[in-house]
Amino acid sequence: MNVPSAKETTAIPLVIFNASEPQPRKAEIMIEFYELAATDDKQVFSPYCWRIRLALHHKGLPFKSIPWRMTQKDRIAFADTERVPVLVDGEQKLADSWKILEYLDERYPTPSLEMNRAELRFFRHWTEMVMFPGMIRMIVDEIHKTVHEKDRDYFRATREKTFGMPLEEFAANKEAKLEEFRKSLNPLRATLKAVDFLGGSQPNLADYLVFSGLMWARCTSPMPLLAEEDSVFAWRERMLDLFDGMARSIPCREIN
Amino acid sequence: MNVPSAKETTAIPLVIFNASEPQPRKAEIMIEFYELAATDDKQVFSPYCWRIRLALHHKGLPFKSIPWRMTQKDRIAFADTERVPVLVDGEQKLADSWKILEYLDERYPTPSLEMNRAELRFFRHWTEMVMFPGMIRMIVDEIHKTVHEKDRDYFRATREKTFGMPLEEFAANKEAKLEEFRKSLNPLRATLKAVDFLGGSQPNLADYLVFSGLMWARCTSPMPLLAEEDSVFAWRERMLDLFDGMARSIPCREIN
Repeated sequence: MNVPSAKETTAIPLVIFNASEPQPRKAEIMIEFYELAATDDKQVFSPYCWRIRLALHHKGLPFKSIPWRMTQKDRIAFADTERVPVLVDGEQKLADSWKILEYLDERYPTPSLEMNRAELRFFRHWTEMVMFPGMIRMIVDEIHKTVHEKDRDYFRATREKTFGMPLEEFAANKEAKLEEFRKSLNPLRATLKAVDFLGGSQPNLADYLVFSGLMWARCTSPMPLLAEEDSVFAWRERMLDLFDGMARSIPCREIN
Repeated sequence: MNVPSAKETTAIPLVIFNASEPQPRKAEIMIEFYELAATDDKQVFSPYCWRIRLALHHKGLPFKSIPWRMTQKDRIAFADTERVPVLVDGEQKLADSWKILEYLDERYPTPSLEMNRAELRFFRHWTEMVMFPGMIRMIVDEIHKTVHEKDRDYFRATREKTFGMPLEEFAANKEAKLEEFRKSLNPLRATLKAVDFLGGSQPNLADYLVFSGLMWARCTSPMPLLAEEDSVFAWRERMLDLFDGMARSIPCREIN
């Protein structure tokens, strides 16, 4: 396994114990987290990886970010997968974002992600089935420009096969699609007019799931998907401020 | 105020006290609940009223159902509103379904509806902004046939003004709309493949909000909106079974 470069996040010096089985001390934890990156190692943009990144910060877990590219299948074969996120925690080698979230919440229960709350699953499916399809058809040509040079041919070939047409054709007519996309956010918009976060006064998994989708677009496309007067925009600003501005510090392509 | 008929639900003989301020004994509570009814007093069909009906059952609160028709504005003027649900609890006279839910959860905290959980608001807005608009354009002509005779002219006039066309035209082409409606349920469908209720092993407010929308169609339209092999259909069956089959006992027009 070839690990070229790694960034370490700041470990929060907090020791938490679970009543039944003690959580490991933070200083003893060394989580390796493979996430999809652009040419710039720091420009991580996969919405599925963002879920994990935010969950790790939510729990204050130190981790080593390992930038990965789409064509490096061999580097994650050890986890029996071809896709990131991949998380390695000691003997544990995990793929699939939802399974990783469940693992983290079981292994490091405090503070909780409340993975046992069934209604939070709805936000997973809403983002995957409503938000992502609404976004990809506006941003896929720009994602192609964002991915690492060595991933570009692979990205174009696989996506054009899926969509059955050139990326540029699939991503045409962005303005009309933007209107439809913004309309699809209406339930989110109405909710965020009344509360600071989907989690109330603090963000919870629902916030992380939806925000991860927006980070995908922010990091890959110059097109602003949200109007500044939108309650979703104001909420995204609050999310960008979390964890000492962690998400805001990630290189983005959105033009504001 | 003219109250023609009333049905009393079975009081659950359970006395619950809140540590700080005691909940009233169930035997002392007499809630009056104005809900929209068809010609048959028992055929209650408003999705906004269904939320309250389900919340009252969730909390095991005895209540008197007062059937109300759209043209009886004078009968609810005391609550400073022209629409049901209206709930009267002693000195309290409340309108607006969300305010009533908040009142009930504050006044009768156990078992909780968790109105403090912000992400549950999303289900309110998703039902109102995605489900209801998707349904009304398939069922409004049948709702017109369902409402009380004396409400029919009023219903047609107000709705045709809103939609800018005859009800029958607005509700045309049902099959194409059904496909789109079912697609809009995809996030719900995926969630309910993994869990029994949005609330997990037991229903919570999210279940009540979504189910209330489906009861609107079930009580007013012969068109089956759900395919029998759908996970949403199976969940609706479980919801119909709740509270000794309360919802199942309501006269319905859906043909199965």
